[in-house]
Amino acid sequence: MAVYTEVAYEDLELFLEEYDLGQVRSFKGIAEGVENSNYLLSTDQGTFILTLYEKRVAPEDLPFFLGLMEHLAREGIDCPTPLPGRDGRSLREICGRPAAIISFLEGVWPRRILPQHCRLLGEAMARLHLAGASFNMHRDNALSVGGWRPLLEATAPRAHEVQEGLAEALESELAYLEANWPSSLPEGIIHADLFPDNVFFLGDRLSGMIDFYFACNDCFAYDLAICLNAWCFERDNAFNITKARCLLQAYRQVRPFTSEELEALPLLARGSALRFLLTRLYDLLNHPPGAFVKPKDPLEYWNKLRFHQEVRGPGAYGLD
Amino acid sequence: MAVYTEVAYEDLELFLEEYDLGQVRSFKGIAEGVENSNYLLSTDQGTFILTLYEKRVAPEDLPFFLGLMEHLAREGIDCPTPLPGRDGRSLREICGRPAAIISFLEGVWPRRILPQHCRLLGEAMARLHLAGASFNMHRDNALSVGGWRPLLEATAPRAHEVQEGLAEALESELAYLEANWPSSLPEGIIHADLFPDNVFFLGDRLSGMIDFYFACNDCFAYDLAICLNAWCFERDNAFNITKARCLLQAYRQVRPFTSEELEALPLLARGSALRFLLTRLYDLLNHPPGAFVKPKDPLEYWNKLRFHQEVRGPGAYGLD
Repeated sequence: MAVYTEVAYEDLELFLEEYDLGQVRSFKGIAEGVENSNYLLSTDQGTFILTLYEKRVAPEDLPFFLGLMEHLAREGIDCPTPLPGRDGRSLREICGRPAAIISFLEGVWPRRILPQHCRLLGEAMARLHLAGASFNMHRDNALSVGGWRPLLEATAPRAHEVQEGLAEALESELAYLEANWPSSLPEGIIHADLFPDNVFFLGDRLSGMIDFYFACNDCFAYDLAICLNAWCFERDNAFNITKARCLLQAYRQVRPFTSEELEALPLLARGSALRFLLTRLYDLLNHPPGAFVKPKDPLEYWNKLRFHQEVRGPGAYGLD
Repeated sequence: MAVYTEVAYEDLELFLEEYDLGQVRSFKGIAEGVENSNYLLSTDQGTFILTLYEKRVAPEDLPFFLGLMEHLAREGIDCPTPLPGRDGRSLREICGRPAAIISFLEGVWPRRILPQHCRLLGEAMARLHLAGASFNMHRDNALSVGGWRPLLEATAPRAHEVQEGLAEALESELAYLEANWPSSLPEGIIHADLFPDNVFFLGDRLSGMIDFYFACNDCFAYDLAICLNAWCFERDNAFNITKARCLLQAYRQVRPFTSEELEALPLLARGSALRFLLTRLYDLLNHPPGAFVKPKDPLEYWNKLRFHQEVRGPGAYGLD
């Protein structure tokens, strides 16, 4: 919810000399995106987003992210596309930051999730997974099971400040996940952060998915597990099986999943819950007092984790 | 630089039922405006700003501000105009806040001020002053000389934290201004906050002025004095007499000022410097640790105040 780097209009003018976008008609910082600085840029040629990549995005990952968006857009997936400058490069620099101009995606993200949103999401995610198959770059998921122990070690000493006994409970959960994490599920490009604020709708259709800055290679079902957590719980932490069924049914009509994927869902959902719990916990404990961004509640994901720990099979998610 | 009130898309939909704006195509919080929450709203009918008035704007002043914008737009001044709902009212409520939809103004505000900007500003300000004459509402300037002593009293006990001896120097300055403040200069509607980020340019022209939430009745020359401080100092605190001359010359070609106004400029410029020094000092000393907005440096205005204290006549501003 912030702009971290202030871009002077004069810097923008210099930056735009590499493009043919005509006269600037408007340029405003937008209060979206936790990781990067985003500006809405209107010119004679249309509306665009100027993104400055801030310190949480590793510069060496940017060719993967931008290349993926270009690839997916070419494959017909509704997502923002980087705009190349005259020299063909889309990754440039402004105000000392890596930056790119990205196409503007119409639509609004839903604050109150309806089953219909989950249905459209399932279909779009499956199409994204299929379209990623022909993308020839690779990026490991740094926030999969192998990345959780360092996060736990960094947060465990102060986890009790958030909830008594939390570190011990997370240690036990992590040990279980490390011992049982599946290694042979179908894999490919996943979005890995398809929260509602990254999915835009326009009237009755899903107009696009944004924010590919966690995208990576991992098992497809893990993307579904992330969405079960992000889309299918009510504000009172109750799991909404109707929304889960809509998500999964719509997905498998486009990309049918194997019985192994289905069986693995409860475990993957536990893993996904632990992943967001740990990063939120880390952010909360390391939150600088004067920071712009209000930290998200890690315990929301504690409740989700507990739900999935009790799940005995995919029937709990509305599927047989 | 923040959005203080998060507007759910569903709240927006309800709010828009009072308008005929067609389907929403995009809705994004924008990182501009220190006092209010602003959203950029695109619909089938065009682009608009949704402003939520936060606690620093007194609700009883809103009819004045919105009425003034409507009036000025009718008089041909380039400024945002409130959009009335079907019932004719433009001031409504969303998420428990007073709110209005305002027309969107193209243009960008200049980060590096050129003399040409000051020339266009002077002309536009004079036209604004003339257009205000036929506006029939009145609002006292709460931040003129009568409002400074309470601010000084609230900040004096801790002013030394910012600069040794600051409270004493401000007390002496305020006593001088209270004793000498002019009372018979030509008056009318002034903007009272025409900083560069409130003035938009598009190519070679000034496309409009925004943010009328400090507008009030006061002497016209005080508006000029505010702009001498806000537009005519370089980043190293040096006063740029060329820019001042451009501002004042362009102004008086539209609205010639009296010799009394000209003579009063140094005093008004001291007053304007004290006003922004005091409010910035107050904001700095009362800055909540977790706040979004980074406080501005009060001492920038200490340097401006010292400059004007040495001025012996309007020649210092480029005029005879």
